[in-house]
Amino acid sequence: MELETAVDLDATTNRRVVLRRRPEGLLTKDDVELQEIVPLAGLDDGEALLEVDWIGIDATVRTWLSKAEGYLPAVEIGEAVRASGIGRVVATRCERFPLGHAVYGLPGWQRYGVVHDDPLATPVGEEVDAPALLAVYGATGLTAYVGMVDIGRVEQGQTVVVSAAAGATGSLAAQIARIHGCRVVGICGTDDKARWLLDDLGLDGAINHRTDDLHARLKELCPDRVDVYFDNVGGPILDAVLDRLAMHARVVLCGAIAIYNEHGRPPGPSNYFQLINRRASMQGFLSLDYWDRFPEVAGKLGEWMAEGKLQYRTQVYEGLESAVDALNALFTGDNTGKTVIRL
Amino acid sequence: MELETAVDLDATTNRRVVLRRRPEGLLTKDDVELQEIVPLAGLDDGEALLEVDWIGIDATVRTWLSKAEGYLPAVEIGEAVRASGIGRVVATRCERFPLGHAVYGLPGWQRYGVVHDDPLATPVGEEVDAPALLAVYGATGLTAYVGMVDIGRVEQGQTVVVSAAAGATGSLAAQIARIHGCRVVGICGTDDKARWLLDDLGLDGAINHRTDDLHARLKELCPDRVDVYFDNVGGPILDAVLDRLAMHARVVLCGAIAIYNEHGRPPGPSNYFQLINRRASMQGFLSLDYWDRFPEVAGKLGEWMAEGKLQYRTQVYEGLESAVDALNALFTGDNTGKTVIRL
Repeated sequence: MELETAVDLDATTNRRVVLRRRPEGLLTKDDVELQEIVPLAGLDDGEALLEVDWIGIDATVRTWLSKAEGYLPAVEIGEAVRASGIGRVVATRCERFPLGHAVYGLPGWQRYGVVHDDPLATPVGEEVDAPALLAVYGATGLTAYVGMVDIGRVEQGQTVVVSAAAGATGSLAAQIARIHGCRVVGICGTDDKARWLLDDLGLDGAINHRTDDLHARLKELCPDRVDVYFDNVGGPILDAVLDRLAMHARVVLCGAIAIYNEHGRPPGPSNYFQLINRRASMQGFLSLDYWDRFPEVAGKLGEWMAEGKLQYRTQVYEGLESAVDALNALFTGDNTGKTVIRL
Repeated sequence: MELETAVDLDATTNRRVVLRRRPEGLLTKDDVELQEIVPLAGLDDGEALLEVDWIGIDATVRTWLSKAEGYLPAVEIGEAVRASGIGRVVATRCERFPLGHAVYGLPGWQRYGVVHDDPLATPVGEEVDAPALLAVYGATGLTAYVGMVDIGRVEQGQTVVVSAAAGATGSLAAQIARIHGCRVVGICGTDDKARWLLDDLGLDGAINHRTDDLHARLKELCPDRVDVYFDNVGGPILDAVLDRLAMHARVVLCGAIAIYNEHGRPPGPSNYFQLINRRASMQGFLSLDYWDRFPEVAGKLGEWMAEGKLQYRTQVYEGLESAVDALNALFTGDNTGKTVIRL
């Protein structure tokens, strides 16, 4: 369609964080460049320009910065870092994205980002609670729900373990298992997080993997072993839980934050052979494949929120300047709940 | 029931190979003891004594010799090495095992072995082709069939890779996939085996992992990537195939001969993360759980044999003295097809 615009595109400039070089280990401020006055490009048919108000910080962003083959192409050097976000349409050549409406998509680490008429961008109306959308009703909640319900196939009475359980996805996944009547044990990295899991989210057990004896605590808290393990971390924690699987257990591979910053190939799960002894399975999935289930899943999550069964936390950073710190907090364990940036 | 016997139990002695100490690495002759004149123990109700004629050599035997937790208890020091075998009932206190009938079970590395009235021992009538039973119609064929059909869910036109493809289970699994109309590539360790896979078994490709560039050959022979990987070996071969998985691929974990002789914990599959990128799964299974499907599966395999669609080879060793060599041949790659011992 023809261009409709609410701003003077020629007089508006962008501000963005682009990748300068591929990081080794944690992303550093020298790996990126904050560009201050960048002319906007024109819009092609089917595109819309968002003025981005909120950016969601997801661990998977780190995987997009490496050259290795992944599920989306790597971010190229000189491109804005890819990231989820919510913005308002300020110029559009797409009927799905009307001027003034909010859109949830992957605009990236920038003030103005383009979204395309594809399943990765979703119009979300005129009024939107952006932090709640990023923390619960968007990809994070979809990932937690699909992973626990569709892939993990949790059933009442089963024992479920979740790693990075105080993180954005893990905290929802753990609560979804609890809502399904499971015994739920969360693994996290600080005592404060453990207390949140027990006192506020109502989990049956919490393990601080930095200070507890992981094997001993898993044995103690999961006397009937582990039917479903929702894994966000990989590494030694995955190995420890593989040692404690119940018969016919399911390991839901959601992510592996323990290895995203590794250079070269990290060690794999040396206990994978327990999958044979325990007739168990390990399955990877991506919420990308379930995008069409947003309405259904958001509906369920919304009900549970309304009933007080589901809680979330956000950790808010301010401005593009904070993006590198916000991302790294996911790996150093300095975040609780959903990390977002307000622009 | 009351004892019925065809031999003078008091005047008959056993000959057996018992475990002296837990092996480190390949089993050595010093790890076991060949005991020559061992009195027979009495039979409890529900037991039968077999005079064992044929022993089947399976890689999994090695896992039973280590102390680590497995799917069956470890063989204790001083016990005969557990192994599958076929013998004739020479004394019985169980109606399922009539005198003179053949029984397929786990009598172990010994001339006289006791079987119990449980699903692990199967009466197989008066006349039996023992090598064919061990090679095709017993646990080996059941493992290949269930792994490829039930766990791998192979479908016409899919690409299937099998490791240890010239081994007992692998050679059947590969042919079962071919019978299902798949493109089948076998990985093996000698050029002779590769020729057998191509010329006799009719596979679409064969890779000698000792001399070929595994990654390059997988790319060349699996242009549409790998839908089902039937893994008997683990180790670097598993990692290489994980790098070549198709979307929604299934990795069937049947065994891991690359690591059975490792002391301590071997490296795990460092590429397991491809399970997420490819929305793939890795599932372990044991034919033990499918024992009740022997008649159905043996029927299918028998039809394919009669139609000339399925072939097998046996490699025959003579006497208990050869048991250690026969087992080790599975790991050094000196076997083709099913390894059996004739007593």
